[in-house]
Amino acid sequence: MTQITLISSNKSFGGYQKIYSHQSKELSCEMKFAIYLPPQYSSETKLPVIYWLSGLTCDENNFIQKAGAQKYAAEYGIIVVCPDTSPRNVNLPGENDAYDFGSGAGFYVDAITDPWRKHYKMFSYVTVELVEVINVNFSPQPGNQSIFGHSMGGHGALICALRNPGMYKSVSAFAPISNPTKCPWGEKAFTGYLGDNQELWNEWDATELVAAYKGPALEIFIDQGSDDQFLKQNQLLPQNLVDACSKAGISYIYKEREQYDHSYFFIASFVSEHFAYHAKHLIN
Amino acid sequence: MTQITLISSNKSFGGYQKIYSHQSKELSCEMKFAIYLPPQYSSETKLPVIYWLSGLTCDENNFIQKAGAQKYAAEYGIIVVCPDTSPRNVNLPGENDAYDFGSGAGFYVDAITDPWRKHYKMFSYVTVELVEVINVNFSPQPGNQSIFGHSMGGHGALICALRNPGMYKSVSAFAPISNPTKCPWGEKAFTGYLGDNQELWNEWDATELVAAYKGPALEIFIDQGSDDQFLKQNQLLPQNLVDACSKAGISYIYKEREQYDHSYFFIASFVSEHFAYHAKHLIN
Repeated sequence: MTQITLISSNKSFGGYQKIYSHQSKELSCEMKFAIYLPPQYSSETKLPVIYWLSGLTCDENNFIQKAGAQKYAAEYGIIVVCPDTSPRNVNLPGENDAYDFGSGAGFYVDAITDPWRKHYKMFSYVTVELVEVINVNFSPQPGNQSIFGHSMGGHGALICALRNPGMYKSVSAFAPISNPTKCPWGEKAFTGYLGDNQELWNEWDATELVAAYKGPALEIFIDQGSDDQFLKQNQLLPQNLVDACSKAGISYIYKEREQYDHSYFFIASFVSEHFAYHAKHLIN
Repeated sequence: MTQITLISSNKSFGGYQKIYSHQSKELSCEMKFAIYLPPQYSSETKLPVIYWLSGLTCDENNFIQKAGAQKYAAEYGIIVVCPDTSPRNVNLPGENDAYDFGSGAGFYVDAITDPWRKHYKMFSYVTVELVEVINVNFSPQPGNQSIFGHSMGGHGALICALRNPGMYKSVSAFAPISNPTKCPWGEKAFTGYLGDNQELWNEWDATELVAAYKGPALEIFIDQGSDDQFLKQNQLLPQNLVDACSKAGISYIYKEREQYDHSYFFIASFVSEHFAYHAKHLIN
């Protein structure tokens, strides 16, 4: 199930920004993903990969159109993979009714409730199936990969790294939903995808996972705008994550960016720092 | 008529990306424009301005979201103004029927045909009214301005500079519709806005205007992707413009970018070169 179909290809900063579709076994639907192949990419060269996970309402296009990341991917010679944020067109009742649940809002968990568990397994998709699709079709450096994301996807990146110790060389997040079991967005999504047993929720919450982390040394890089509207609404709760890191002895970098908000204008302003950070871990 | 209303403001690369609305006297409708105020901007500092004109189907958002230009505007300390591409919601019959005529397709001309002439005066709007709105509200360096654009807006930038000798310090264009009187897009737009008298069309065609140009020394910088789908469809005809420049003794820079297309991925890849070019003319 690793066959892919090219949807579009645009030359960008000397490389190519491409979008592909494929039939996902994990999600039982057709999925799209974007991949930037930097100018250093060739059939003979093996390059590192960074996975980007987008936030609520997004798909595979937002980051590649708005973040300005191709410039840095080209400079460092890094492949960047951007999956969609949920299964699409799977005909579940209510899948398109809300911006924060269902389509565009998969939360990067593996659902266990009906009817969502038939399709909504974004965690397994992002950490297993998509990695295999990328490895088979683009032959990157085996295992030399990092992950980052924004908001729901920032949290997604954190749980991918925390639940798979050693799988990613580095992890960073822009304005992540840091403690979803304690905020309205997370409570709604986890109730819907995981059910009412809040014990199970903790297995998918970065702040809880940090407290329980037993793996190789890990550092977490969090970037947060001080004027983020969702920070003010207590949807993001980065302080809870930072406190959990301190308590668990997990090192972190927390950068508060004065007057920046939750938008891609914030991401674009600092994406170069995230590439520099990941490149330090991926490129010797 | 220079009062403006703030629609949005996002911190970006140390400055602010803002969108305003205002009531346009020239167009008899409410218009929006985007303005990037770099970190150097203050009530005491006067900065140069670059105007950006977008292409067919675009509005004031495309460039500010997709070009990655704020980084360079911040580095050089330049204000960037992006108007919409046409009047909006003026209730003319058929105004929303086509992507290449009416809404989103003002072509930066002053229409003389009914009913379009009541509203479709984008040339006067961009070169007179909007400049006054910017000068009154943001106090840039008087007269220290340049202009560039993409496709329909690339041609718009060229005619703004060619019809107003000395008004802009420099002009550049990504994939401009270089000779609209000789291509399907231009023929449709000029017939609609200017009527059937093709003599009048020449006054709004950059290639014709170059041939007739009598003003201070001017250089034209054209950037063109070799795999541009509209180049292949003979909508852009840059060779006609370049030939006219050669014949008229107007200097030009023509950069063909191998395998790039007509998209914002092309623009983002080379926007830094355009900022360097304009900064050379705007900043001593």
